[in-house]
Amino acid sequence: MAAAESPVLALSGGVGGAKLALGLADELPPGKLHVVVNTGDDFSHLGLHISPDIDTLIYTLSGNANTTQGWGLEGETWNAMDALQRLEGETWFRLGDRDLATHLWRTDRLAQGDSLPQVTEKLARQLGITSHIHPMCTAAVRTTVHCEGRDLPFQHYFVKEQCAPVVTGFSFEGIADARPNERVVALLEGTAVAAIVVCPSNPFVSIDPILQIPGMWQALRDSRAPVVLVSPIVAGLALKGPAAKMMAELAVPVTALGVAQHYCEHYPGLLDYFVIDESDATLAPQITALGVEVAVTNTVMKSREDKQRLARFTLSLVGA
Amino acid sequence: MAAAESPVLALSGGVGGAKLALGLADELPPGKLHVVVNTGDDFSHLGLHISPDIDTLIYTLSGNANTTQGWGLEGETWNAMDALQRLEGETWFRLGDRDLATHLWRTDRLAQGDSLPQVTEKLARQLGITSHIHPMCTAAVRTTVHCEGRDLPFQHYFVKEQCAPVVTGFSFEGIADARPNERVVALLEGTAVAAIVVCPSNPFVSIDPILQIPGMWQALRDSRAPVVLVSPIVAGLALKGPAAKMMAELAVPVTALGVAQHYCEHYPGLLDYFVIDESDATLAPQITALGVEVAVTNTVMKSREDKQRLARFTLSLVGA
Repeated sequence: MAAAESPVLALSGGVGGAKLALGLADELPPGKLHVVVNTGDDFSHLGLHISPDIDTLIYTLSGNANTTQGWGLEGETWNAMDALQRLEGETWFRLGDRDLATHLWRTDRLAQGDSLPQVTEKLARQLGITSHIHPMCTAAVRTTVHCEGRDLPFQHYFVKEQCAPVVTGFSFEGIADARPNERVVALLEGTAVAAIVVCPSNPFVSIDPILQIPGMWQALRDSRAPVVLVSPIVAGLALKGPAAKMMAELAVPVTALGVAQHYCEHYPGLLDYFVIDESDATLAPQITALGVEVAVTNTVMKSREDKQRLARFTLSLVGA
Repeated sequence: MAAAESPVLALSGGVGGAKLALGLADELPPGKLHVVVNTGDDFSHLGLHISPDIDTLIYTLSGNANTTQGWGLEGETWNAMDALQRLEGETWFRLGDRDLATHLWRTDRLAQGDSLPQVTEKLARQLGITSHIHPMCTAAVRTTVHCEGRDLPFQHYFVKEQCAPVVTGFSFEGIADARPNERVVALLEGTAVAAIVVCPSNPFVSIDPILQIPGMWQALRDSRAPVVLVSPIVAGLALKGPAAKMMAELAVPVTALGVAQHYCEHYPGLLDYFVIDESDATLAPQITALGVEVAVTNTVMKSREDKQRLARFTLSLVGA
């Protein structure tokens, strides 16, 4: 068991994962939380480099997220979008005025030669975040959603088409040439990481892109830290986003067991613990049979206290 | 003398020129005003293609200009800039939230292969302008201000350093390879242009870049339309901007006569008429001696009516 001062590594996508990340950040000493973030959702739009999951994490951890809307900044204004609409520009991806500054700044820094990890680190610091936010890699990896009859870039599927098309699979362009963010590699190699927490994010489009970067999931498995997954599926429903709909369309059982099977099949030996919701307690024996230790608690995070409580539960489970 | 239905061609930079352009647009039938605009001030900033003179003209002609501030949009908000400041981004060039949409849209359209004239035409139409706004050329021409000891890109001189450095000269990078906007060429060749009006813009950094595009000033001179210049210098002062300061630093007499001498020396035979202010009436004989017909009126434009009156005076002078 690692000491409380050891770093904890979390894997996360956007909104769902960011909730638990916020709880973890609250529970851990400042600077001890490291979050590896999916960048497969990144895209270029209106000439801007947009990193939706990074921004959701940073806005959430800095206390600026619009929790009612579920994305973007609290108290945001939309004057640029309104003006763009008047010009008949593309407004399907809603960029708030303050949010625009993030994208302008990031795009400019990248054009000047900074890497995405450097830009992300600076962004987090400027917004007062003590946790470390690590883009999963430096290379451009782009998630494509294969739908019946056509392929869609992720944001087109997710935002423009609002997840309506029926999904047949996913691919991550550029992933074969990507390497895990070297800061994450160094963390896994250099220090006693106390725990690796897979946040309740979408397995297919948030966590798979991270784990499928060549060498990533093996490095996580081979580290001495226990790996604990928090289920993104509760009572057959996704806590956030299209995970349940995707599972149904892919003929994966829409249950915590289906999630466990997905991870155990594709990443054998990775998971040590699986936190499932009380409503799914009856699935525990079948999940345990997969070789994963199951822990049951209330995993629905509504309030800040919910997030902290689930974070405490998860950390204590692995002695972190 | 051309009929009132014939087009009028105006040459303009930003704020000063846009005032007379607004008067001309008010006085002429819809669609009859064509404005050739300086793009030497254009620059790339935060990845955005910014065309300050085009935007000032379009915002002015569409009734959206912030006339108190002298630039940008009326009722503008600054949330993106405030957020960018928090990120320690570059905020010396103030981009309002609505104004940002213009730059995002333009940059995106250019990236998709539209030309600056096409983008400008669409922008003008979307904002309800019936006048035609023609960027002086399609190629990138960039004004450099030579100052004592260093060279500054125009916006660095003008905005970042607020025109403080002492000027020794100007150059227009890329101008040797630029060609006059073909719509302007077609207009001069194809129709009976009633008049060519050089608006009261800065001779050195607004009008010179236009006239020095290879073939431009000769085409204007050789057209059958009379060319009338409205003085940007009144009683030794620039109506707007650093023109007077520049003239003093370049040892050009800071008078309407100095302006006339500049044009007659560099563009012999171009000017037919020169509209000067009543306060400069005593300079008329010396200007007439340069071979330019002088007309005296009140050239200071404060109200909308001032602009319309000066436009009427200028048009009637040449029978347009």
